[in-house]
Amino acid sequence: MKIDYKKELETASKGMIMIHDPKLLIKLIVRMIVRKLHIRHAGMILYEPVKDSYALSISRGEIGVKVPAGFTRFTKTSPIIRIFNRKEFKPLTFNPNAILSEDINRLLWHESVISNGNGNGKLTKELLRKVDEQMQMLNSVACVPAYYRHKLMAILLLGEKRDGSRFEQEELDFFAALASDAAMAIRNAQLFEDLKREADRNRALFLQTIEVLGSTIEAKDAYTHGHTGRVTEYSVAIARHMAASGTAQFPESFFENIYIAGLLHDIGKIAVPESILNKTDKLTEAEYAIMKQHTLRGDEMVRPLSLPKECLEGIKHHHERFDGKGYPDGLKGEGIPTAAAIMAVADAFDAMTSDRPYRKGMSKEVAIEEIKRCAGAQFNPVCVKAMVELYSAGKI
Amino acid sequence: MKIDYKKELETASKGMIMIHDPKLLIKLIVRMIVRKLHIRHAGMILYEPVKDSYALSISRGEIGVKVPAGFTRFTKTSPIIRIFNRKEFKPLTFNPNAILSEDINRLLWHESVISNGNGNGKLTKELLRKVDEQMQMLNSVACVPAYYRHKLMAILLLGEKRDGSRFEQEELDFFAALASDAAMAIRNAQLFEDLKREADRNRALFLQTIEVLGSTIEAKDAYTHGHTGRVTEYSVAIARHMAASGTAQFPESFFENIYIAGLLHDIGKIAVPESILNKTDKLTEAEYAIMKQHTLRGDEMVRPLSLPKECLEGIKHHHERFDGKGYPDGLKGEGIPTAAAIMAVADAFDAMTSDRPYRKGMSKEVAIEEIKRCAGAQFNPVCVKAMVELYSAGKI
Repeated sequence: MKIDYKKELETASKGMIMIHDPKLLIKLIVRMIVRKLHIRHAGMILYEPVKDSYALSISRGEIGVKVPAGFTRFTKTSPIIRIFNRKEFKPLTFNPNAILSEDINRLLWHESVISNGNGNGKLTKELLRKVDEQMQMLNSVACVPAYYRHKLMAILLLGEKRDGSRFEQEELDFFAALASDAAMAIRNAQLFEDLKREADRNRALFLQTIEVLGSTIEAKDAYTHGHTGRVTEYSVAIARHMAASGTAQFPESFFENIYIAGLLHDIGKIAVPESILNKTDKLTEAEYAIMKQHTLRGDEMVRPLSLPKECLEGIKHHHERFDGKGYPDGLKGEGIPTAAAIMAVADAFDAMTSDRPYRKGMSKEVAIEEIKRCAGAQFNPVCVKAMVELYSAGKI
Repeated sequence: MKIDYKKELETASKGMIMIHDPKLLIKLIVRMIVRKLHIRHAGMILYEPVKDSYALSISRGEIGVKVPAGFTRFTKTSPIIRIFNRKEFKPLTFNPNAILSEDINRLLWHESVISNGNGNGKLTKELLRKVDEQMQMLNSVACVPAYYRHKLMAILLLGEKRDGSRFEQEELDFFAALASDAAMAIRNAQLFEDLKREADRNRALFLQTIEVLGSTIEAKDAYTHGHTGRVTEYSVAIARHMAASGTAQFPESFFENIYIAGLLHDIGKIAVPESILNKTDKLTEAEYAIMKQHTLRGDEMVRPLSLPKECLEGIKHHHERFDGKGYPDGLKGEGIPTAAAIMAVADAFDAMTSDRPYRKGMSKEVAIEEIKRCAGAQFNPVCVKAMVELYSAGKI
C-alpha cells in the first residue's frame, strides 16, 4: 500500500501546535507514525531545556525499545547526540539528516578512505561505532534529527517497516519534515508549559502572601488565635454549600475571592491600638468606635491590591446586619453583598465558640441555636440555613 | 514567473508558530504575501477573543485599503463575517472557501435560479451584495477565510495581482492553506499572550501584596512613617550602583529580591508590643532584647512564602555589623549576606535622617559623614562607598 506522505504530513502538522502538553504531543506523533506509516515501533529523544540534556520520552509499537521509556537520559556528549550536532561535526563527510543502521558500515568505510591518516577520521569512526551500538540498544534502524534554529531539538527513532523493506529517500524526507514540524510544536508546547508554570507560581506566591498578610493580625490580637483561618474555612464552606444546594449561583472565582476576603477580613485591626484590641473589660463607647473602624481601615489597606469586588465587600461589610443595624454603612437585607453576609455568620459563629481569657467559648450546638435565633435580624436567613445544614451534616 | 506555491507555503509556515506576538505575526504573513506572491496589497481581518469581534489588523502594499488599519471593527453580524459563518449559511449553494469579487454577479445569478421564490435566496442575495460593497471599500478582489475548529479565525483580504491576471484555483488553494496555518499560528500567539498577561498580572498582584504587607508595620509604629519605602528605595539604588560601578556582580533577580526584602525588613516589628515600639525614652535592656527579636520574628513570618534566599537574608540579617557586633547571629565581614549588608547602610541612613517625636533628624550631609566614619566597623565599606557616591551624585 502506497502512502501519500504529503497528505500525511499535512494532516499530522495541522493542529500539532494547538497541543500545549509536550508529553501528549510526543505521544500523538509517535502513535501516528506507528499506526499510519506501518513502522513496527517508534520513539523520540527530546531535548529538555531545564536539564540541558536529552531524554528518551516514549516508545510505542509492537516491540518497543529494550530500555524503559522515560528512563534513559542522554547528555550532550552522548554519541547519538554528538553525531547530529552540526557545529561540532562539520568535518563529517556525510550530511547527517538521517542515519540508517544499514548505512553505518558504508559510512565507516567512507570515513576511512576520505580522511586517511587524519585524526578527525579516527574520532568520527569511533563515534559512528558507538552510535551503532546505541541504535541497537534502542532497537532502531533509523534516526532522524529535528532542529530548531540549528539546535538539535529531538531525534526520531524508527523501528523496522512492517513489510521489511528498507527506507526510501522519499520516506526519510517525509520523516525529516515531520521531525522538524514536531520539534517546533514540541518547543512551542515547552514554552507554553514554562509560561503556565510561571503564572501558577506567581499565583501561588500571591495567595501565600495574602495568607501571611492575614496572619499578621494574629501576631497583635491575643484573642484571634486561629480565628482568621477558621472564619475563612467556614465562609468558603457556606458558599460552596449554598451553591451545591441551589440557594445561590456563584462563578468559580467567587470561592477564591471569599477565601481571600476571609483571610483579610480583620486586617484593619492592625491599626487598632493594642490596649483596645486586648482589653478584657467591656469597651467604652469611644473605644468601641475605634474598634469598629477596623472595617474601613481594612478596606483602605487593601485598596492598592486591586482585588476583585467580592474581596473588598467582604472586608468592608462583614459587620453589617440583615436588619440594617450593623456597621460601617448600615446596609440592610439584600443590600448587603453576599460575600459579606456569609462572612458575618462565619465570623459570629467562630467568635461564639472560641475561648477568651475572661470566658469560655460556647459549644457549637449552643452557638448554632443562637445563630438560628438571629436569622433575619443579625444574619441573612439563606446563609444561616447553609451554616445549620453544614453543622447537621457534621461538616463544621 | 511561476511561483512554487508548495515551497512558499512550507517556508511561510515554518517558524510561524514560534512567533508569539500576534501583531508581529500578522505583519509578517501579510508582508510575505505581498512581496513574494506578487499581490498589490493584502490585509487581514482577525478574530479577537477578548472583544468577541473581528478587527482589520493590517494592510500593506502598494495601494492599501481605504479605511485606516486597526480602525475598523467587524461584529459577528457584519456581512463579510456572516458570509463565511458556515453554520448559519448552510443554505448557501456555493462553498465559501474563497469569495472573488468577479464571481459575485455569477453567485447572485446562481442564487436567483436555485432558490427561486425561496425566502433564504433573497436573504443570501442581499448579503452577497453587501459583501461586494465591503470588499470594494476594503479594495480587495478576493477574501479567503481561515478556520480553526470550525470557528472563523481570520479573513485574508487580497488585492489585485501585479500582472493583472485573475486568481487561479491553485493560487486560491494555496491562500486557503496559508490562511489556515496562519489562523492556527495566530490563535497560538493569542493564547501565549493571554498566558503571559496572566503571569504578569499574578506577579504584579504578588508584589502589590508584598507592599501592603510591608506597610502594615507603618500602621503600628509611629516612628516608621515612610521608613519602609525609603529603605527599599535606598537599598535598590545602592545595589544598582554597586553593579554599575563594578564593585559587585548581581543577577537581575537580585534587584527584585532586595526590593522585596526592603519592603519586609521590619515586618517582625508587628510582633513587638506597641509600648516598646513607640516608647520615647531609652529602652530598658529587657525591652531592647524584645525589640531585637523583630529580625527573627520577621524571618519566621515570611517563611511560608518560599521567598528567594536574598529576601530572607535581608530580613533576618539587616542588623548585623561588619565588625561582628550586630544581631541576631553576630555575623562578620564577608560572612554577612550582601543584601543584608546593603540594607544595613540604607536602614541606618534613613533612621539618622528621619525626625522622631523626641529629636529632629540629621541632615543628609551629616548622616553621610557618620556612615563614612562607621565604614569597616558597623558597615561594609563597599556598600558605604556606593552610598557616598550616590549622595555625591545627588541621587539620594
